[in-house]
Amino acid sequence: MNANYADRLDAAISRAGNACLVGLDPHPSMLPEEFAAARTSPSRAERAAAAGDFLCEIIDLVAGQVPAVKPQSALFEIHGPDGAAAWERVVRAARAAGLLVIGDVKRGDIDSTARAYATAFLEGAYSGDDARCDAITINPYLGTDSVKPFLETCGRTGTGVYVLVRTSNPGGGLFQEHGEPPLYLRVADAVVEWGNSLVGRCGLSSVGAVVGATHPSELALLRARMPATPFLIPGYGAQGAGAAEVAGGFLPGGRGALVNSSRGILFAWREPRFAGMHWKDATRAALAEMIGALSAAASATRT
Amino acid sequence: MNANYADRLDAAISRAGNACLVGLDPHPSMLPEEFAAARTSPSRAERAAAAGDFLCEIIDLVAGQVPAVKPQSALFEIHGPDGAAAWERVVRAARAAGLLVIGDVKRGDIDSTARAYATAFLEGAYSGDDARCDAITINPYLGTDSVKPFLETCGRTGTGVYVLVRTSNPGGGLFQEHGEPPLYLRVADAVVEWGNSLVGRCGLSSVGAVVGATHPSELALLRARMPATPFLIPGYGAQGAGAAEVAGGFLPGGRGALVNSSRGILFAWREPRFAGMHWKDATRAALAEMIGALSAAASATRT
Repeated sequence: MNANYADRLDAAISRAGNACLVGLDPHPSMLPEEFAAARTSPSRAERAAAAGDFLCEIIDLVAGQVPAVKPQSALFEIHGPDGAAAWERVVRAARAAGLLVIGDVKRGDIDSTARAYATAFLEGAYSGDDARCDAITINPYLGTDSVKPFLETCGRTGTGVYVLVRTSNPGGGLFQEHGEPPLYLRVADAVVEWGNSLVGRCGLSSVGAVVGATHPSELALLRARMPATPFLIPGYGAQGAGAAEVAGGFLPGGRGALVNSSRGILFAWREPRFAGMHWKDATRAALAEMIGALSAAASATRT
Repeated sequence: MNANYADRLDAAISRAGNACLVGLDPHPSMLPEEFAAARTSPSRAERAAAAGDFLCEIIDLVAGQVPAVKPQSALFEIHGPDGAAAWERVVRAARAAGLLVIGDVKRGDIDSTARAYATAFLEGAYSGDDARCDAITINPYLGTDSVKPFLETCGRTGTGVYVLVRTSNPGGGLFQEHGEPPLYLRVADAVVEWGNSLVGRCGLSSVGAVVGATHPSELALLRARMPATPFLIPGYGAQGAGAAEVAGGFLPGGRGALVNSSRGILFAWREPRFAGMHWKDATRAALAEMIGALSAAASATRT
């Protein structure tokens, strides 16, 4: 019996006391010097291993402090099979450290292909139970029948999905705001409907939504429209949003949302204000800052 | 200097004399008995290798007869790192056999993440030049800034993309038909615009569109609206469309489109009409049928 993802998420946020989601995006060019092999080694296996080494150290730094991490698939896929091995190693390490793992894969396809993606990322059948993700991001463009296979897998395995609804990039509106009502509201309503059959005891669904923090008014609007939907909010930190911008995404008590920062945590040592610090100390300081800021924002929602 | 993808595509279609795109979707449960290890072996490496063995035989069967093949990423990803290794082996084998390779990966993300996907699939930098795809499928939901990194890579490496515009699945209309004009026309216009800077000497662009064959009237409408856009048309055969349904997707002379069949070719031996045939003979017969039907449909467009 696998516990519902939403229940596990709600418990993890409550246990950590904050909604920080640490994005694991191992850009080879940005890693600290001690992991320079990720960009300089002539061996792909060594490059991938160095990226994995770095992320395992990050996992050690953040374990026990945040509820979840979000590895970014693209930065592993650049290393081919060696990157896929590093992915499994990082997922295993994060789960062993008690962190929820949200695989940022943004997959989307139809029928048996969608089912294969669900199998690849959310089932233990092929990768081993310890190397599957607790949830993944998916793309809704192909419609309900492209999402159904993921929902079936989520129900069976106690996992979740976060559907792209409104993204934080400057050009995100081109198609997402198309029509009247804008497409993203149509997608939001579909997400609510898809989620109805996967509501946990905590009252939240295992079908979440990716909602960018660079649109605070939309965030509050979507929060009201999707009261049982867990949000994954990107755009914090390096992408420009602060705690005030994400506050509208929380449910009362600071529940129901994860706020992602990737390079703001991983590569904090590159920021002028942390100049001279060891990269680990810079990461610790940046994480403490983010936790403080988010906790304050969440407190403002406390019932 | 890398030749423009559209020019290479146009030459490949002309050389083969048909527009068949063989989809390489190695569903473990459907492979012929001699590749049963793909579903029965306790070793993931052996399962992935059996899937790769099967596809390498398919490549031998279709080489010289069709312009291109389309491996489906999900069916490799289920095998983790071993699947990624099988992917590279299959891409290498297809390219060595003179086939164009269109990676069906449907990726889509922003900024440096999109760039990493482009690097992973379209550059030789990490995988070796012989293991990169000639083109990949991408998802447009995140807008222009999510597509730009792919376009830049295509221009530099002589590769292409096929943007999901109108998909062939029953539920594809839910979001793709949203608004007035429907979203897919808005996406189609963006595809044309994105493609303007990547037009080859043949007059076609390296920025293509995925347009389902299950909507023949839309196919003709989009063909008229996107006169320089290569089409990738799924939905033929197992998904229900015949040669008449795809005819509207061709430019005069049978140019400008690839028509995909996956299980109709790979798993032809499972169809009652080929009962008793060796799987290779069934695949040969199904391919000959499809080539004949498509050639007839393309002839009808000859100027």
